[in-house]
Amino acid sequence: MHSPSIEKLISLLAKLPGLGPRSGRRSALHLLKRRGSLLQPLIQALQEVDAQILTCNTCFNIDTHDPCTLCRDDRRDQSLICVVEDVADLWALERAASFKGVYHVLGGVLSALDGIGPGDLSIDPLLRRVKQSNAQEIILATNATLAGQTTAHYITDRLQDYGVKITRLAYGLPIGGELDYLDEGTLTTAMNSRRAM
Amino acid sequence: MHSPSIEKLISLLAKLPGLGPRSGRRSALHLLKRRGSLLQPLIQALQEVDAQILTCNTCFNIDTHDPCTLCRDDRRDQSLICVVEDVADLWALERAASFKGVYHVLGGVLSALDGIGPGDLSIDPLLRRVKQSNAQEIILATNATLAGQTTAHYITDRLQDYGVKITRLAYGLPIGGELDYLDEGTLTTAMNSRRAM
Repeated sequence: MHSPSIEKLISLLAKLPGLGPRSGRRSALHLLKRRGSLLQPLIQALQEVDAQILTCNTCFNIDTHDPCTLCRDDRRDQSLICVVEDVADLWALERAASFKGVYHVLGGVLSALDGIGPGDLSIDPLLRRVKQSNAQEIILATNATLAGQTTAHYITDRLQDYGVKITRLAYGLPIGGELDYLDEGTLTTAMNSRRAM
Repeated sequence: MHSPSIEKLISLLAKLPGLGPRSGRRSALHLLKRRGSLLQPLIQALQEVDAQILTCNTCFNIDTHDPCTLCRDDRRDQSLICVVEDVADLWALERAASFKGVYHVLGGVLSALDGIGPGDLSIDPLLRRVKQSNAQEIILATNATLAGQTTAHYITDRLQDYGVKITRLAYGLPIGGELDYLDEGTLTTAMNSRRAM
């Protein structure tokens, strides 16, 4: 019943994370009713981003510059490199605003099941980067999943002879977390890593 | 920390219904990573829709034609007009695919609180349409809310001398609805409108 162009817009919007067929329709209608205030600004923003978007050749972040805004920032400690799986993880850590070093985006995790080996991730570029820079500490901030930890261990092995400090994020209770709702793995880790008050 | 163009895209995506600041960011990143398969097709779809979109001057539906696809469809009963508050309601009824007449989109409901009077809705165009066409029945499919029912009553009054049959949608239990989870108003209505088995 919709015209083909509206149908196409709905099906594309439905592919965005958090949206589905139903909310894709609602979003399409929302846009159709707000041509000047939302539809046209969105077209312009998408075009701008499409024209400018680059992958940083140093840290593999996505940005409109190469080197990216973070790699070019003199106020950040370039000797402290935080290794993350994905750009989304970098964005999450930046939101926390507690880290003042730089990043290295792996582009995934090692996975025998999905056929993803070290060559598919930016691990060799990380080793070259560590060798060529005056990196002091590598923080492995992969996810606390089996694949994330496997990848962290693999990178630790590869970095063994580079003379840098290698650390990982702490595991434990999330702030605000209630014991009753946490899984056994988190509780065991939190118990085993307990600290003096 | 994001470039201004990425920030702008995130803030626009966050305005879509069902998305917020967090899922706006996720959607932006999702698009940035899929330039060819999603970002560019979405730009094209939005541009197409922006260039083609029209309001039907007969029924006030949003479409790429005027009269709209539904008003031009010979297989639909043009003497049966279903009055809805919003284009979203028209889309919902079309999904149900049980109605083969045509529509009339009011563009809202009467609301003293929001200062919306009869002149702000497409009520006068509805009266003209009924007069000029061979309309046999007007189905008032406004929402089962106080404002929706008030609007339906107002339109009923205005249509009194037009010699058309005026009906409304049935109220009662939603299909699959469990009595325990339904409000008292629905249960009372369902009880009072009970039918013989």
